[in-house]
Amino acid sequence: MRTKNSIFIATSLDGFIADQNGNIDWLHQIPNPDGDDMGYRAFMGEIDALLMGRNTYETVLSFDMDWPYDQPVFVLSTTLNSVPKELEGKVFLKKGDLSVILSEIKEAGYHHLYIDGGKTIQRFLEQDLIDEMIITSIPILLGGGTPLFGSNDKRLAFTCTNTKRFVNAVAQNHYTRNRD
Amino acid sequence: MRTKNSIFIATSLDGFIADQNGNIDWLHQIPNPDGDDMGYRAFMGEIDALLMGRNTYETVLSFDMDWPYDQPVFVLSTTLNSVPKELEGKVFLKKGDLSVILSEIKEAGYHHLYIDGGKTIQRFLEQDLIDEMIITSIPILLGGGTPLFGSNDKRLAFTCTNTKRFVNAVAQNHYTRNRD
Repeated sequence: MRTKNSIFIATSLDGFIADQNGNIDWLHQIPNPDGDDMGYRAFMGEIDALLMGRNTYETVLSFDMDWPYDQPVFVLSTTLNSVPKELEGKVFLKKGDLSVILSEIKEAGYHHLYIDGGKTIQRFLEQDLIDEMIITSIPILLGGGTPLFGSNDKRLAFTCTNTKRFVNAVAQNHYTRNRD
Repeated sequence: MRTKNSIFIATSLDGFIADQNGNIDWLHQIPNPDGDDMGYRAFMGEIDALLMGRNTYETVLSFDMDWPYDQPVFVLSTTLNSVPKELEGKVFLKKGDLSVILSEIKEAGYHHLYIDGGKTIQRFLEQDLIDEMIITSIPILLGGGTPLFGSNDKRLAFTCTNTKRFVNAVAQNHYTRNRD
């Protein structure tokens, strides 16, 4: 069974995941009175594990809430040596070559991974390791910020397999990597 | 009657309108056996006139084909002084302040304008003069090129009013500027 690596992320209409000051307040600027999760829970129900960068991990840790993930979370870090006691058995630190890390995760029985974090996604795309992208496009032009996509030497062709619209305002496009 | 300024443009999945070498071959990389125009003719049927930058105008002129537009075309240029004889009465050169130009075009009876050309679109967006955007997202990550959207000091909020999918591969999102 092949590992499937997915991203599920929101960007601004001009492709940023955070504004010039690193803020994401604009994500919540669209009226959403019924708290539509825009497919998040359904997506989370499909994945076996998460793999994220250290920045994203530390951002999640900084939120004043319980640890939000049921699945194992693999965190890419060259600097962290341990996780908080309460996250032992839930968070696993990884470093080194991505393909080796992915083999280990697959060996452990996790086949469908949620890849999260701006730098981590870019690193995966540089190595053509993303199979599926679910991109929620918040209809705001920020005018600048941290782009989801980085520069890349090779072109990567996808197919848009689905488009949805949420809260009468937000487009979500579902892409699958074309593989022969 | 208010002037409505629309854009109808294709970008790569990472938001570029041309690749690093200025090429747009990738626009035609998606199989389209029946020549689906992805809404182009319907859109052209709605507009009263076009307004484009000099680059776009000269690119259209360079194509080995008849002049493709039925409606008047206003070309923004500070350097051109005349148009070829066969385009007299079809192409009109404009320079100066955008709001003055738009008033003149509106005075002449043209209310729904198709704004085209990368720099021209960015100039319009900087002045918050775009009311509608129909963006066809070709599902290829180019990894670099000429971005559709430039940097901007203010945020501009839109609403995604429609999403469509063409040739089973391409998403087209329709945005309307939120105006109070």
